[in-house]
Amino acid sequence: MTAKSQHNWTADPAHVLRVGSGFVLSGRDPQSTPGYEGMKDDGRADLESGLEELAEYQERLFAASRGGAQDAVLLVLQAMDTAGKGGIVRHVVGGVDPQGVQLAAFKKPTEEELAHDFLWRIQKRVPEPGMLGVFDRSHYEDVLVARVHRLADEAEIERRFDAINEFEAGLVARGIRIVKVMLHISYEEQASRLRERLDRPDKHWKYNPGDVDERLRWPHYMSAYQSVFERTATEAAPWFVVPADRKWYARLAVQALLLDALEGIDPQWPAPTYDVEAEKKRLAAT
Amino acid sequence: MTAKSQHNWTADPAHVLRVGSGFVLSGRDPQSTPGYEGMKDDGRADLESGLEELAEYQERLFAASRGGAQDAVLLVLQAMDTAGKGGIVRHVVGGVDPQGVQLAAFKKPTEEELAHDFLWRIQKRVPEPGMLGVFDRSHYEDVLVARVHRLADEAEIERRFDAINEFEAGLVARGIRIVKVMLHISYEEQASRLRERLDRPDKHWKYNPGDVDERLRWPHYMSAYQSVFERTATEAAPWFVVPADRKWYARLAVQALLLDALEGIDPQWPAPTYDVEAEKKRLAAT
Repeated sequence: MTAKSQHNWTADPAHVLRVGSGFVLSGRDPQSTPGYEGMKDDGRADLESGLEELAEYQERLFAASRGGAQDAVLLVLQAMDTAGKGGIVRHVVGGVDPQGVQLAAFKKPTEEELAHDFLWRIQKRVPEPGMLGVFDRSHYEDVLVARVHRLADEAEIERRFDAINEFEAGLVARGIRIVKVMLHISYEEQASRLRERLDRPDKHWKYNPGDVDERLRWPHYMSAYQSVFERTATEAAPWFVVPADRKWYARLAVQALLLDALEGIDPQWPAPTYDVEAEKKRLAAT
Repeated sequence: MTAKSQHNWTADPAHVLRVGSGFVLSGRDPQSTPGYEGMKDDGRADLESGLEELAEYQERLFAASRGGAQDAVLLVLQAMDTAGKGGIVRHVVGGVDPQGVQLAAFKKPTEEELAHDFLWRIQKRVPEPGMLGVFDRSHYEDVLVARVHRLADEAEIERRFDAINEFEAGLVARGIRIVKVMLHISYEEQASRLRERLDRPDKHWKYNPGDVDERLRWPHYMSAYQSVFERTATEAAPWFVVPADRKWYARLAVQALLLDALEGIDPQWPAPTYDVEAEKKRLAAT
């Protein structure tokens, strides 16, 4: 089912963007807008109206947890540099009450983190009941960067895939809906966005010479992502590949995926745990 | 100086709302709109345009920290129940990039927290360089609730006032601008807001019978706040008492106070730490 507030979908984004069996990353076009028949202006209008729906769902999710519900949502964002993770956080997640959001940005692991299993730092940031959690990069770095840079051998990568599936199944069993998103940009679009960061003094701080080093490993990363999809796109915790050359589409699609997850939970306002009429009298007496 | 984007101030809110010597809380009117000559609609329009200015300042603050700047902002929110702390977080702080915000809500202390000094849990949540930190309640609970409920004797409260002043001076020395805000509502307005929570099923979860218990201690709380202002309104970390019966005014005023703090920092885009022209060539060769 598509979000009530987004009007121009012709197919359910949770269906058309989902990684199913036989999925081939190289067959997906980063410029496409699967399932959406509108243009940029329609997309922006739909994003705007979707914000309200998302904000209301989030408030109900939060409220329900105060009544004891265990449900939470975890959005996992993975992508090559400049693909727009930050824009998703700003323009999609930024539309809901900050009090209901738990954002975790995973950088290069520290010495302490490296001394533990790769899931150690991840487990500490799992969203609590009622929260919308966002992982800006995640445990998937440990099977992507680790593979491309040969920081772990193939046996260890395989062990990690199994550990990830087990870990995520455990989260789902606890009531956490996991939405795993790869923002898929093209090699050409990345060049253009990196160039913009070099051209604009107010963007210089976003550029890192290491970005070009990683860019030179593009085919290795695409191959590592393909393996990730083959090994960790599970029924419990599906992957969605979102074409991201058009920022407006990527934002709209991720919003739709979050709306879909929340619609699946359908959180309800909790019943009061006190006597409403008695409290009205107590209050009136003050 | 008043915010460039808020047009209807006739006096600087950072001046008129600041707790100075001789301040008397009971002399302040929670319904007033000090320094602002507009009405509700003007206030909303000014809040809207202020959001953009705040978002830009926040991005520059964040960027500057990537260049090594140590500056951060810490907004401390204290208030009686229903005064609108949540609305400030949602409508003022919620307008900036979530990636630049560190929000800490301090609830009733846990056993572990009680086993440590009262500042132990606070120190762990101090915003990092570049961040806009928000304390939803704070170490001031330990000289407010603690006093009203006699959880600590007067000598201990005095010790805490000194500890707070020393702690905050240390933060300021590290580059953190502290904006301490008490949202000031009237006893009558609180009754009306609590009543609304009891009248609306979608608000029931926000009501707690303990809210009326605390309400019955209103004069004790006001007296405890007065002491807080007398002992902890310092040059380094000033207090602002913001009339909060009109939500639109309170939000606008807190936004103005944040803009004022950021204007004082005046964060700058950092200079690149790499050779821009050389990187353009490297990128073009990919």
